[in-house]
Amino acid sequence: MNEINNNSPIGVFDSGVGGLTALKELFRLLPDENTIYLGDTARVPYGIRSPETVTRYSFENVRFLASKGIKLLVVACNTASSVSLEAIRKSVSVPVIGVIEPGASEAVKSTRNKKIGVIGTEATIRSSAYKKAIEAIDGSAQVFGFSCPLFVPLVEEGWIEGEIAMMIAEKYLRKVKEKGVDTLVLGCTHYPLLKKVIAEVMGSDIRLIDSAVEATKRTAGTLKKDGIERRVKERPSREFYVTDSPERFIMVGERFLQQKIERIEKIEL
Amino acid sequence: MNEINNNSPIGVFDSGVGGLTALKELFRLLPDENTIYLGDTARVPYGIRSPETVTRYSFENVRFLASKGIKLLVVACNTASSVSLEAIRKSVSVPVIGVIEPGASEAVKSTRNKKIGVIGTEATIRSSAYKKAIEAIDGSAQVFGFSCPLFVPLVEEGWIEGEIAMMIAEKYLRKVKEKGVDTLVLGCTHYPLLKKVIAEVMGSDIRLIDSAVEATKRTAGTLKKDGIERRVKERPSREFYVTDSPERFIMVGERFLQQKIERIEKIEL
Repeated sequence: MNEINNNSPIGVFDSGVGGLTALKELFRLLPDENTIYLGDTARVPYGIRSPETVTRYSFENVRFLASKGIKLLVVACNTASSVSLEAIRKSVSVPVIGVIEPGASEAVKSTRNKKIGVIGTEATIRSSAYKKAIEAIDGSAQVFGFSCPLFVPLVEEGWIEGEIAMMIAEKYLRKVKEKGVDTLVLGCTHYPLLKKVIAEVMGSDIRLIDSAVEATKRTAGTLKKDGIERRVKERPSREFYVTDSPERFIMVGERFLQQKIERIEKIEL
Repeated sequence: MNEINNNSPIGVFDSGVGGLTALKELFRLLPDENTIYLGDTARVPYGIRSPETVTRYSFENVRFLASKGIKLLVVACNTASSVSLEAIRKSVSVPVIGVIEPGASEAVKSTRNKKIGVIGTEATIRSSAYKKAIEAIDGSAQVFGFSCPLFVPLVEEGWIEGEIAMMIAEKYLRKVKEKGVDTLVLGCTHYPLLKKVIAEVMGSDIRLIDSAVEATKRTAGTLKKDGIERRVKERPSREFYVTDSPERFIMVGERFLQQKIERIEKIEL
């Protein structure tokens, strides 16, 4: 293992391409940081799997990133953050940032009527991770969680606007609207790509919380607090690793990241 | 390994629940046979993965079923049949039935204008397995393949009829219709559940081929030819194995199978 210092990379993992929405935020907010992104594309999606299986896969991802000498770990995957974060924290010595607590915290700041909606994968919603995190901050908040299983394949297909996306969003979000929430947490890395459709269905008075944005702010804060920001102004290194062959990841991923993916390698976990 | 005889089970594997459409056919046509079904639910779906990864996972599935002393193997997964069948055949000593060749063969019998459409997952279509199999039987047939990535999540969500299913089917099948095909192969185990919607979009003059039905007829023929049918009239044993926890498999699977799933066990591959 490499010695950890300010110049060490930030490690980010996700079940696949989705975490690139978080990585994009990281590039924007912390442009000088070296990064290593791992997408477990041979076993994506995590959102339909059991907590035990998600945790097993997460440990394998973390072990790989730890071997690269990362100085901080971002668990960009909402499902892994929901079911495995505490276990991951115990298994590594570097700071670990998940997406749940930052998203929950921002939702509590945002709500006026204390009714908060959360949408995510089956596993994320089943875990009640957002609900628990929100209630830990404000016990009087009401949290309503709904899974939207078709949103991820819809985004990966690139159908992020138009009639089909609208109809699916209307069908899923009807129940959320009925609850009278004033804040909605996008509890899955893919959902920010559907922001326009979701905003149109929910109405302009509903605040949408992007957990990836909040997690990145938290990352910046932690780097500063711990004094481990990269201070070199040289061009940072941005590495990508995937567990299946990279073609599909590059094709879908460049749409998520809105830039070219250059250094990418397939690994076996 | 158990000694193989007429009483030995038929092994069936699929990436998940989809192969249950084939198993249902098998129960119907060969009700006395013992069966072992393996759904690789910890790594489903195969349709978005590379050929190398699909082959690696298939070998692990086959090794497990072979250790159970099966007398015949059905590869119910179209993706695995498309990219790994020859490799699987070389790795086991029992007869191996895939879904591609039986489906292709029936499509050639069915077509009048020699224009055949094939719909399936990204990996199945990219492999051109149906196209090659059809052209090997009739070199003058024209084959048009299209992937329909949203069909699988749509079926797993249970939205197999209604406006959303119709609109998605119309969007995907427009290109197929434009080719003037008179026969359409449903080249994915999930698609038979969308048969009503697909038939409505394609029109009643288009013949739909269900590969699972054809593979089951082939299975029955092979058992007879090899003289390895089960001749005992006792109630057969029907075992299920999955690689993730069984809850979701049972929930979705009973809808596919239209009967209770009783003996099920989680294994690690």
